[in-house]
Amino acid sequence: MSVAKEFEAANANYVASFTKGDLQLPPQRKVAVVACMDARLDPARALGLEEGDAHVIRNAGGRASDALRSVIISQQLLGTREIVIVHHTNCGMLTFTEDVIRDKIRTELHQNADHIAFLPFGDLEQSVRDDIQILKDSPLVLDVPITGYVYEVETGKIVQIGENQ
Amino acid sequence: MSVAKEFEAANANYVASFTKGDLQLPPQRKVAVVACMDARLDPARALGLEEGDAHVIRNAGGRASDALRSVIISQQLLGTREIVIVHHTNCGMLTFTEDVIRDKIRTELHQNADHIAFLPFGDLEQSVRDDIQILKDSPLVLDVPITGYVYEVETGKIVQIGENQ
Repeated sequence: MSVAKEFEAANANYVASFTKGDLQLPPQRKVAVVACMDARLDPARALGLEEGDAHVIRNAGGRASDALRSVIISQQLLGTREIVIVHHTNCGMLTFTEDVIRDKIRTELHQNADHIAFLPFGDLEQSVRDDIQILKDSPLVLDVPITGYVYEVETGKIVQIGENQ
Repeated sequence: MSVAKEFEAANANYVASFTKGDLQLPPQRKVAVVACMDARLDPARALGLEEGDAHVIRNAGGRASDALRSVIISQQLLGTREIVIVHHTNCGMLTFTEDVIRDKIRTELHQNADHIAFLPFGDLEQSVRDDIQILKDSPLVLDVPITGYVYEVETGKIVQIGENQ
């Protein structure tokens, strides 16, 4: 059975107890979370989010530059006024370099991916600081509070990186 | 109080009952979900995901072209072999055009954002079909099962769009 079919079965249970059909489009808590796509991180459970609370933008590494389009839409059209960045320990982005993944794609897929920035990083805490700075420096992002965390996959804890911005 | 501080308080509760510190890096169910960032959609609850199960990639609209970097990393480095796309009713991406948001940014931020494709859409079901096709057509994406859904924010239900691919 495909995982999609399993999702449909699980969704039937969700629908059976669903009570949130009247939520508004703009996020109630006016915050956009930018987090890694990692399977072990569930931003809603780890941060106490209910349906309707927050935009949750996720990509490989939780990188800000790759989230920029979504952050701009979140702020300009849907009124969010705070950003929270969540990277995490044992991240896959710590395990490769641009050259490694491009070589793998060249060898295994016979394709050239040199035009894609895959955005791995070598220093986890610095990656959070860098991504805060990218958003702070962008003239397309409003001057709102930005807080960065490292989520510990070993403990479930979020640890703030840097000062409140 | 910033929302970030509220997240820290909620996280302390999560940590107190955390039992998943030994999960592996590759997603257990070998699937990558590409979903909209919308606040009303909680992919984990709606699809029955536990920590460790799946990559969850989210952006404004759940657009495939904006998820490509993450999908490639998910497949090439972390072994996922199925993709599920989730767009949803009442999506903000149905409410504007490229010109509208670029004009708003020009007027309010005094910046030029013409270089950014914001990727709004006028037809919800077609947006799912288009995004399946983008992934099917990309030589950088493996030939894996891709299933597309519309999530109904009114009912919590996922409705499949198109045939299984």
